[in-house]
Amino acid sequence: MTRRSLRDDANQEAYRRLAGARPVLRDIRPAIEVVPRMTRDLVLTSGPLLRWSDYEGGQRRALIGGALFEGLAADAAEAEAKLASGAIRIGACQDHDCIGSVAGIYTASMPVFVIENEAFGNRAFSNMYEGQARKRLNYGSYDDEVKERLDYINAAVAPVLGEAVRASGGIELAPIIKRALHMGDELHSRNTAASLLFAVALFPALLDLPPALRNEVKRVTALLVEDNYFFLRLSMGAAKASAAAIAGIPHASVLSTMGLNCRSFGIQVAGLDGWIEGPLPDPEAKLFEGHGKDEIAWLGGESIVTETVGLGGLAQAAAFPLFSYQGGEPLDMIARTEQMYAITIGEHPDYRIPVLKYRGTPTAIDIFRVVESGITPFLDIGIAGKGGVQIGAGVVQAPLPCFEAAVARYNDHYG
Amino acid sequence: MTRRSLRDDANQEAYRRLAGARPVLRDIRPAIEVVPRMTRDLVLTSGPLLRWSDYEGGQRRALIGGALFEGLAADAAEAEAKLASGAIRIGACQDHDCIGSVAGIYTASMPVFVIENEAFGNRAFSNMYEGQARKRLNYGSYDDEVKERLDYINAAVAPVLGEAVRASGGIELAPIIKRALHMGDELHSRNTAASLLFAVALFPALLDLPPALRNEVKRVTALLVEDNYFFLRLSMGAAKASAAAIAGIPHASVLSTMGLNCRSFGIQVAGLDGWIEGPLPDPEAKLFEGHGKDEIAWLGGESIVTETVGLGGLAQAAAFPLFSYQGGEPLDMIARTEQMYAITIGEHPDYRIPVLKYRGTPTAIDIFRVVESGITPFLDIGIAGKGGVQIGAGVVQAPLPCFEAAVARYNDHYG
Repeated sequence: MTRRSLRDDANQEAYRRLAGARPVLRDIRPAIEVVPRMTRDLVLTSGPLLRWSDYEGGQRRALIGGALFEGLAADAAEAEAKLASGAIRIGACQDHDCIGSVAGIYTASMPVFVIENEAFGNRAFSNMYEGQARKRLNYGSYDDEVKERLDYINAAVAPVLGEAVRASGGIELAPIIKRALHMGDELHSRNTAASLLFAVALFPALLDLPPALRNEVKRVTALLVEDNYFFLRLSMGAAKASAAAIAGIPHASVLSTMGLNCRSFGIQVAGLDGWIEGPLPDPEAKLFEGHGKDEIAWLGGESIVTETVGLGGLAQAAAFPLFSYQGGEPLDMIARTEQMYAITIGEHPDYRIPVLKYRGTPTAIDIFRVVESGITPFLDIGIAGKGGVQIGAGVVQAPLPCFEAAVARYNDHYG
Repeated sequence: MTRRSLRDDANQEAYRRLAGARPVLRDIRPAIEVVPRMTRDLVLTSGPLLRWSDYEGGQRRALIGGALFEGLAADAAEAEAKLASGAIRIGACQDHDCIGSVAGIYTASMPVFVIENEAFGNRAFSNMYEGQARKRLNYGSYDDEVKERLDYINAAVAPVLGEAVRASGGIELAPIIKRALHMGDELHSRNTAASLLFAVALFPALLDLPPALRNEVKRVTALLVEDNYFFLRLSMGAAKASAAAIAGIPHASVLSTMGLNCRSFGIQVAGLDGWIEGPLPDPEAKLFEGHGKDEIAWLGGESIVTETVGLGGLAQAAAFPLFSYQGGEPLDMIARTEQMYAITIGEHPDYRIPVLKYRGTPTAIDIFRVVESGITPFLDIGIAGKGGVQIGAGVVQAPLPCFEAAVARYNDHYG
């Protein structure tokens, strides 16, 4: 077989696995119990792993916050010293099958969604949305308020939801994603319908919880649907569980993940090992009232795993409601999705977009198609500010150099 | 004041009332307990009232079925005789503040949603969706299966839901409609998101029902969300409660309702009394597999009250998912809604359409604007077959003659 046909076959296999993924929420457990190689002294963060001294700004503060939340240090100075000495270790989320939102902090006690890809037997983990508060650990903030919210998730939200999830026998996530795409969600910047569908799917199990938990159940249910972002972590976990099943397919030139740290944008390719890194994107974001472009800070982020599987920016045509969030022209969203078919191997058989006459979402991003067309994936991202809060949202295009480097490495490797 | 400025002021008032309506679901009760002038011997049906001998086809069969369901006759022959003699009386739904889906049968024991327009103090009533079965009373079918379903609604669904609605203190319907318009619903042919939002709004009250009802609560909750049409009756009731508040405004030339019986299409105008009738529409419908145009039957219908308040066909641009149901080109839905601004007085301040940059839905249809532009309202309707089942769905334009007759009558009346 020619090198090209090996690549084509491998990419078809990658497409087939992405299209056939079956992510199911099985459980909610503390990270220490379920995340591979998780340890008490480990803090996981988003993107390609850096040395402690290279973490800066919000991602650095988030790592310190994670260490404090986990009780690994008494104060920030001690945490910094221990992070520097290696007494507190730093890991990359995706090396542990986790997926990080913004700075993406995981520590041992944090509850995580356990998502199994039933079609291929692999698992992924995603931790829980901190809620609508402006200051959040994953945006680089840590104070009493942030701690209180995380404690509430650990002590109340996760146990109640976990009990219901286990009693339900598992919640299939693909049918929720499928229906949400018909209801204005693209499953990255908008998860409103998916959050409702998830809540409703969990109702029977919530109804069956012991009457003593009634008030807790009410509070948790309210949270599921008030926070329109609740499902984002499940969408990310489902995407990670789906994309991880293509990692390691020899000759495949399809993306198996994307991620950012505070210094670089990185991609992984199914047929290659490790991260390939390039410069950070240039955000043309719509900032919230009162914020300026000079405040924009990069502190990592792996929610773009949703784009990796054809959702988010690739499925903008499904999500006109985002107009209020990211600005622009609504009909441009159609044009963006249409462009994405030029860089993908196929169309998803189940995830379909009404305004495109139910055409399947563009699925399996090929680095060769990206470089040959010069079109890079659209990414729907939240914009963090230097002050440790979200200051806006928008759509950016992934920077091309990273894809050029990946093609060069692919050609080196497969010769 | 000139006649024209009297009309303009009156239409502004009508617009103001439609835009300011606040429909709230307060209760679910048997029609006999709450519907004005409801009696044991009365069967209500859709559209302008006809003599018994003029009801034909499915609407005639539905009236007989209603009489049988209510136990007013032992068999169809007895029911026909009693309907002919007046021993069983026939009424028009909207004369009793009810709103009929297709044939729209209401009898004394049937549970109805009690919807209050809190802004203006008036009430409207809507009975409950029969479910996904092909044969339904409101499509002109009545047999043991239809009866069983109606009995289940009377005996189980309505009591459980009614208990929850009362315990909830009332469910505000406008916020649900507002959010559903961002999630692919136009609140006539598509109510998927609204049904989910309603279920979620009711969930705290359902959780509080006595544990003995647990299994019933589960079945009813499943029904709320499995039947994507569940909310339609609430959307219709909310629209009727909203539109009824403009009836009787002197000089107003805005529609206060629309409705069909088996022989005619009718409208009511806020500043005029009674129905103005014209020919039935010509349906360009997408029929379900295996059905032909010769099977199409008219058996009444008042769900187009949703169009009267600017939803349904007027808000098609909100509902691209309908492409699978009604065919056509998705982007035509935008053009349809855009045309509707030519015949309406204003834009709804809360009901907004994402793809139109959150422009408000076209609100308050003016008969003069219709006749001057020659553009009539788009109506999203289900198509009934002669066999007593739904055979398709589509979009039709209301026939112009009825609007021309209304303008003539308006000019006669206001001179």
